[in-house]
Amino acid sequence: MTLREERVTLAHGGGGKAMRELIESVFLSVFAPPGMEDQARLTEAALQEPGARLAFTTDSFVVTPVEFPGGDIGKLAVCGTVNDLAVGGARPLWLSASFIIEEGCEIALLRRLVASMAAEAAVAGVRIVTGDTKVVNRGACDQVYITTSGIGVIAPGRDLDARRIRPGDVALVNGVLGDHGATILAARGDMMLSADLQSDCQSLGALMEAVLRAAPDTRCARDATRGGLASTLNELAEAAGVSVELDETALPLRPEVKGMCEILGLDPLYLANEGTLVTFVPADQAEAALAAMRATKAGQGACIIGRATEAGAVPVTLRTAFGGSRIVDMLVGEQLPRIC
Amino acid sequence: MTLREERVTLAHGGGGKAMRELIESVFLSVFAPPGMEDQARLTEAALQEPGARLAFTTDSFVVTPVEFPGGDIGKLAVCGTVNDLAVGGARPLWLSASFIIEEGCEIALLRRLVASMAAEAAVAGVRIVTGDTKVVNRGACDQVYITTSGIGVIAPGRDLDARRIRPGDVALVNGVLGDHGATILAARGDMMLSADLQSDCQSLGALMEAVLRAAPDTRCARDATRGGLASTLNELAEAAGVSVELDETALPLRPEVKGMCEILGLDPLYLANEGTLVTFVPADQAEAALAAMRATKAGQGACIIGRATEAGAVPVTLRTAFGGSRIVDMLVGEQLPRIC
Repeated sequence: MTLREERVTLAHGGGGKAMRELIESVFLSVFAPPGMEDQARLTEAALQEPGARLAFTTDSFVVTPVEFPGGDIGKLAVCGTVNDLAVGGARPLWLSASFIIEEGCEIALLRRLVASMAAEAAVAGVRIVTGDTKVVNRGACDQVYITTSGIGVIAPGRDLDARRIRPGDVALVNGVLGDHGATILAARGDMMLSADLQSDCQSLGALMEAVLRAAPDTRCARDATRGGLASTLNELAEAAGVSVELDETALPLRPEVKGMCEILGLDPLYLANEGTLVTFVPADQAEAALAAMRATKAGQGACIIGRATEAGAVPVTLRTAFGGSRIVDMLVGEQLPRIC
Repeated sequence: MTLREERVTLAHGGGGKAMRELIESVFLSVFAPPGMEDQARLTEAALQEPGARLAFTTDSFVVTPVEFPGGDIGKLAVCGTVNDLAVGGARPLWLSASFIIEEGCEIALLRRLVASMAAEAAVAGVRIVTGDTKVVNRGACDQVYITTSGIGVIAPGRDLDARRIRPGDVALVNGVLGDHGATILAARGDMMLSADLQSDCQSLGALMEAVLRAAPDTRCARDATRGGLASTLNELAEAAGVSVELDETALPLRPEVKGMCEILGLDPLYLANEGTLVTFVPADQAEAALAAMRATKAGQGACIIGRATEAGAVPVTLRTAFGGSRIVDMLVGEQLPRIC
């Protein structure tokens, strides 16, 4: 079906004919959800296995600009929710997608975002099974916001939890830090920066499964999104009752990101990532985890960045290249709004 | 925990300390979800029963004003998703709640909305188990938008589907039509109308269970939200391949709503409802369904409004009080934006 209009009008949110045309033409034709009721009805054998648990998560996405090098708000909305499921040890199964659209938004933009979501869902092995659209008047939103929720299944016996981190455990990441935050900053154009950067926006399910196979006693994992690696590690350290010591020389940073941070006085440890996993594994499984990560597409740049220690005066410290040590606090204030 | 600030700032969305304080103080202290990871991990025996299916639905809410007689955007976000699950035959279990908040939004308003959501979740028997908050700059949202997703369980053998409607089936609603739409219209103040109206915003789970117990062959049900009863009936008739004939004298309308519609040239059949269920049951179970509905709190005003017939020239017609007949089309254009 084709739409006569090129832009979204308030009628597209009214619950009548125009809304149905928009939904059928732009969303259903691509997502092809099971059934046409307001709810998806689903079965999955793995969920019925004794001891299996259901994982449920949600995130809203308000990034600006909505399209940026390496991704767009649609891809981000799929990756973000898939990754929240994956890092908790769940196999992602199904997503919902709800769109808040500004009157005047280009239908062509919506089509690009929906195609991007469908492509990323295929990569991640999930199905977008239900959704909603609302239209708000001009100026009451910024082009489009997307909220995805996700359901996954946690296999019996799998129990990732920040509280399982022990002193001596090794911290690993799957690649360079800060690419998403730096890319969004450059894409906004405010800073007159031109950098050949791409967001790291990617699904981490396959990477996470590889880690868990290679290092079965993996304690926990997180994707280091808003607040960056620094905030994520602070949360983990506090939950576990340990401290974390990072090795500055081991932190993987792209020279362009490092340079941009130096010019702008930003700290790359606080830049958002959208495809960066940080995980803690027992020391004797660290090499196996590292090798397994490097064998996956999303983990080619994996490296060991530090370790957990007995709880000290502060949760996270950085051992600098010069042999000193500095405190790595949680993000205070905000570094860059609407990053995701 | 108390927050120093009275209004939301961009820092509250940054992923750092301020965000954590906002989330702990405003959301977690009330919703008390299980665990503190980015995902809820859940088990439910009913989901593991052979033949049980999982229902999954989502809706974004952008209603303005965010507080109105009879409810607010928080209560609406709980009821809307609970009702999508319930009318599909699922028992609602868990909700996620994701907030897009405008910079400058009053923290006190957020607290009221969260309290309202928790209260309605308790009434509906669901738990709010996971969530997210994003903050956008002033002018990029209108106070607050809420997206809820819901998971429910459909008992083995239960199969509500619009395609099951047969000629001769009877259509029932649980009470007066159009209260929500009329209330929002009056609450906006644009029309200088003062009416003693309240939104019908309510959870329909208990009502739906009562219908299914009393009328086990119930074909299907829907909540008649955006687009009103008229649009809902058109969708059902088209899906089922039948026509629907409404009886004008049987339609339950409050005199205030009727009066407002006459003044403004609106048709109450297109006004949104947020606690109004329309269901089709076999004729021989209609009286039982009606009695069961009237015995519940949400169904005291229940009545039979029409019946399904063999597919005719148009999907939905209204037999008028004067013995004539008029076409009841789907909503064309939009009657009132941002109603839910």
